[in-house]
Amino acid sequence: MSDNIKKIAVLTSGGDSPGMNAAIRSVVRTCAYHNVECVAVYRGYQGMIEGDFKPMNARSVNNIINRGGTILKSARSNDFRTPEGRKKAYEHLKEQGIDAFVVIGGDGSFTGAMIFSEEFGFPVMGIPGTIDNDIYGTSFTLGYDTALNTVVEAIDKIRDTAISHNRLFFVEVMGRDAGHIALNTGVGAGAEEILIPEENLGLERLLESLERSRLSGKSSSIVVVAEGDKIGKSVFELKEYVEQNHPDYDVRVTVLGHIQRGGRPTCFDRVLASRMGVKAVESLIEGKSNYMVGFTEDKIMLTPLEKAVKGKSEIDRELLRVSDIMTT
Amino acid sequence: MSDNIKKIAVLTSGGDSPGMNAAIRSVVRTCAYHNVECVAVYRGYQGMIEGDFKPMNARSVNNIINRGGTILKSARSNDFRTPEGRKKAYEHLKEQGIDAFVVIGGDGSFTGAMIFSEEFGFPVMGIPGTIDNDIYGTSFTLGYDTALNTVVEAIDKIRDTAISHNRLFFVEVMGRDAGHIALNTGVGAGAEEILIPEENLGLERLLESLERSRLSGKSSSIVVVAEGDKIGKSVFELKEYVEQNHPDYDVRVTVLGHIQRGGRPTCFDRVLASRMGVKAVESLIEGKSNYMVGFTEDKIMLTPLEKAVKGKSEIDRELLRVSDIMTT
Amino acid sequence: MSDNIKKIAVLTSGGDSPGMNAAIRSVVRTCAYHNVECVAVYRGYQGMIEGDFKPMNARSVNNIINRGGTILKSARSNDFRTPEGRKKAYEHLKEQGIDAFVVIGGDGSFTGAMIFSEEFGFPVMGIPGTIDNDIYGTSFTLGYDTALNTVVEAIDKIRDTAISHNRLFFVEVMGRDAGHIALNTGVGAGAEEILIPEENLGLERLLESLERSRLSGKSSSIVVVAEGDKIGKSVFELKEYVEQNHPDYDVRVTVLGHIQRGGRPTCFDRVLASRMGVKAVESLIEGKSNYMVGFTEDKIMLTPLEKAVKGKSEIDRELLRVSDIMTT
Amino acid sequence: MSDNIKKIAVLTSGGDSPGMNAAIRSVVRTCAYHNVECVAVYRGYQGMIEGDFKPMNARSVNNIINRGGTILKSARSNDFRTPEGRKKAYEHLKEQGIDAFVVIGGDGSFTGAMIFSEEFGFPVMGIPGTIDNDIYGTSFTLGYDTALNTVVEAIDKIRDTAISHNRLFFVEVMGRDAGHIALNTGVGAGAEEILIPEENLGLERLLESLERSRLSGKSSSIVVVAEGDKIGKSVFELKEYVEQNHPDYDVRVTVLGHIQRGGRPTCFDRVLASRMGVKAVESLIEGKSNYMVGFTEDKIMLTPLEKAVKGKSEIDRELLRVSDIMTT
Repeated sequence: MSDNIKKIAVLTSGGDSPGMNAAIRSVVRTCAYHNVECVAVYRGYQGMIEGDFKPMNARSVNNIINRGGTILKSARSNDFRTPEGRKKAYEHLKEQGIDAFVVIGGDGSFTGAMIFSEEFGFPVMGIPGTIDNDIYGTSFTLGYDTALNTVVEAIDKIRDTAISHNRLFFVEVMGRDAGHIALNTGVGAGAEEILIPEENLGLERLLESLERSRLSGKSSSIVVVAEGDKIGKSVFELKEYVEQNHPDYDVRVTVLGHIQRGGRPTCFDRVLASRMGVKAVESLIEGKSNYMVGFTEDKIMLTPLEKAVKGKSEIDRELLRVSDIMTT
Repeated sequence: MSDNIKKIAVLTSGGDSPGMNAAIRSVVRTCAYHNVECVAVYRGYQGMIEGDFKPMNARSVNNIINRGGTILKSARSNDFRTPEGRKKAYEHLKEQGIDAFVVIGGDGSFTGAMIFSEEFGFPVMGIPGTIDNDIYGTSFTLGYDTALNTVVEAIDKIRDTAISHNRLFFVEVMGRDAGHIALNTGVGAGAEEILIPEENLGLERLLESLERSRLSGKSSSIVVVAEGDKIGKSVFELKEYVEQNHPDYDVRVTVLGHIQRGGRPTCFDRVLASRMGVKAVESLIEGKSNYMVGFTEDKIMLTPLEKAVKGKSEIDRELLRVSDIMTT
Repeated sequence: MSDNIKKIAVLTSGGDSPGMNAAIRSVVRTCAYHNVECVAVYRGYQGMIEGDFKPMNARSVNNIINRGGTILKSARSNDFRTPEGRKKAYEHLKEQGIDAFVVIGGDGSFTGAMIFSEEFGFPVMGIPGTIDNDIYGTSFTLGYDTALNTVVEAIDKIRDTAISHNRLFFVEVMGRDAGHIALNTGVGAGAEEILIPEENLGLERLLESLERSRLSGKSSSIVVVAEGDKIGKSVFELKEYVEQNHPDYDVRVTVLGHIQRGGRPTCFDRVLASRMGVKAVESLIEGKSNYMVGFTEDKIMLTPLEKAVKGKSEIDRELLRVSDIMTT
Repeated sequence: MSDNIKKIAVLTSGGDSPGMNAAIRSVVRTCAYHNVECVAVYRGYQGMIEGDFKPMNARSVNNIINRGGTILKSARSNDFRTPEGRKKAYEHLKEQGIDAFVVIGGDGSFTGAMIFSEEFGFPVMGIPGTIDNDIYGTSFTLGYDTALNTVVEAIDKIRDTAISHNRLFFVEVMGRDAGHIALNTGVGAGAEEILIPEENLGLERLLESLERSRLSGKSSSIVVVAEGDKIGKSVFELKEYVEQNHPDYDVRVTVLGHIQRGGRPTCFDRVLASRMGVKAVESLIEGKSNYMVGFTEDKIMLTPLEKAVKGKSEIDRELLRVSDIMTT
């Protein structure tokens, strides 16, 4: 137990994700519980550089647990990539008497925290807030579960119209480098095929699979495509390719886009955020620094930020196999 | 009361919309109630030409009232545009002993019904099933209310992320010729600007309006754009235009697409469908033909199909004004 | 056009309903649009008596259009039923320079407004905010459409389990004096029977109807019961009655309760609220007083408060008939 | 790999839960993938006794992954508790040439399977389908995640009205013996207090906690109460108790009831069901029997049925602590 941590700052950084507000609330309330002061930083690292701070107490975070987005706003900060920017940020933190900070964000935000911590010997703790679930050291990032549900609900709607017209739909979901969203929502929505960055299915196999599915009596088909799928074609190019090779298919395309980032967090994401906030603050109080809080094997755990940033979140091979069997 | 109507067919035609299943159910059950036989036609007019029929009873439509899409499937039929195609359809109907049909669809489907009815003296009745609400003779088409809710829920999600990042979003919604969806969801989602086919706002006024909204303290902006907006620019072109003229804006684009057609119907659409099905069948039994069932001024009413097809569904001027005031 | 109205107050009173926030927003923004000052009164008439006021501008109501409940809070006020209470309220309004108020609420709130207006010659305008839709002079009250959807979504869930177990469910919905919610959600959810305050179905007919439904092949049954149904038995008593007379039925009971009052407003309720707020403010500016804003026959209209309070909102007989046919 | 398993039966038993259909689909498709025949048993063990079977192929389970309830229906069977009943069931299975079965259900269903398996040397496999999450050997039962979301969405709605009126709500959620639903939804919905079967908070501490919450500036309070909470009072008795001791509180009660069992499964439950179905069928093919498939520490695992039935699913102590901190 460290007596050195008397005031903690909390900020959100990078793309927003559902559950960030629940995590902010948890950080603030855990500080209150331990009689540690808490200060909010607005607009991520940029706000830190500009001194955009606000003191928080347990009541400041009433009724935000169920709201999407982040009440602290988020932004990308080029200034924080420069030594001058980070120096200014440090000076503002010192002025305020802040002893440590918790940053809720993704890879880039963690890298910034590590560099900052090293330069100034400043205690930092990370909470993984991103819908992509592409961070090493946690089985679930904040917002991922909510995004999965947003996507399957959207595909359920598309299925209605696909069935009514015997159509083939390519549905693009988020995931430039990781296929977690595509794989899980593809299985969850009963997609006939799933294209992810980690695997090259090949266009021929895609067509064969669609044909097999049609012959077996399926009247509509939905193909879930991650933004960064390995075939390297956009959903629009895929549509064109299929139409040229199989003019009898009635093909449509939908890009789900930014609806995937918003929305009320699911119960899972709210509980996860509450847990992570407690662990982040209590770890700082215990004198720890430079860790990310994760949830792995049903337990809250710490992973060194360096590992979290360098490690790779692997696609689940068992689920890939399940996916193959389901599309029989 | 006519004794001539002993067997009625029901079909869905054109694009599907939520509430079609509830209307099918209502047609089937109203037939059962009046001891009239009922036959389903699959895949719209194309199925009529190919003789794709199935007898229905009250139990055939159990548990479909809450399902999106259409269990009878829908399709566009080029064959039905030819006299030969319609002749085949007529022969199949006669073979089955069918005395009249109810078609659930839009403008094109009604035109087909009118021509068919004239050629063969065959009683027909139309139910307006389309999300666009662009049909004369009814204040609400089936599926419109559901689509409005799907869109505002999507924009609510986008608002979360727009606020978190102080962004400007262009959100494209359905409506090639009519701005009903854009205007109502724009007002409902609190959009900062709404672009519709009926009005030319002008690009300059759009930029001024966004600027005014920003100066007044709004940190994010959402512009709802109908597919066929009068400015004549796609959401992607609008993004480019704004970015060139105001490089300080952080602009994003979302095309909501086909999720707008699907989903469980709202209570309003289910009740409307139930009412319309009763009226359609009972009007046929009373010896009427060539009408569309509409809901106007809180009442179920009939409009001659010819008027429904030729008339224009006007945008609500009072609501346009409300929209202007709300975006103050 | 009256120059006398320079400052308008807005309050919510009685039970809350979804759409109240959208109406507050509309009143505030319409004032801003017409350069009229706007003041919020907290906790209904009680706050008026206690002088709980807050100035509002267009930005005060950012991002509330999609939130349930009322940011102004609501309360019942016994003090406002006394001349002393109303006198205090009047004095506070005068102190603030307020020239008129808009009250969003139900029957009781309108009665209070009428008495107040008469006593002090004070301009008032009412907006019908209640989920029950039991107010004369409008086809839709604020929150009614949202409540209908909340109820059908709940019954859809109950249907899942009813079908899986071949069960009979009695589902109690709100409506002490009016069966609008029960009738519309009963039709919308495909209920096998609907019990409302306006009609005495009789217990025998209920049992016959359930038996008929079962014999016809329906494996589960859902009976929607308004709180104040005419049979005069609670859902618990109905369960007992059926179990005693038909021990083979597996009966369950659900009281939906307060979830019906909350939740994000539907698009319809948000648009309706926006329209009503504009009309209320502009009518005051035009020098009108003592009216309720309603939406009837697709149009925004005014009804004298006295008529709104004394008149009776009738159940829709055509829909009752539709309901009978649907449960064939 | 066993050649003995050529035909597998699948059934659902006990209370239904969301995800059961997804599990049925997975069992059927995994059989198809491995060229094993698959037969559905309707109405649980009772249907097994009555020989209510139907052959299934990959297409029999199209478009059910997103539906609540169970298409195979479920029932409790007293006959299966007798040796005669089980004998009949066995004879029917043998007549059909069935070599093994997968039962989706809870504790009671697993006990039945164990006894049956022992009596007849018949291979069986269990999949935990219940919303209560009260089964040893899996961190998540099918339907639990969906129920959590149904509950938090309901409490979000109740919160709207609680805030608007400064009220105290007691909300009863499912859980006779286990507090998992109450604890997780209590944390997820930001409840001010949570009453569960595993802990006796004491009525005095409840009142103190509510008082503290009020003094700290919270204007509304929500207490989530598991059916079987340790205090041993129903929500109605709690209301009475508080009203007698604190007449200034405005207390309301809501029993969420059966809506918790229904609804479309979340993405998590659909994916979990798909995984469990694959594991159940492949384990039978590998010659295993008498196991339950579970998901623990991010992995699909087998637990002997005997352990699953006798073991106790413990409440999460770390989450209890998080809950205490959040309600500071």
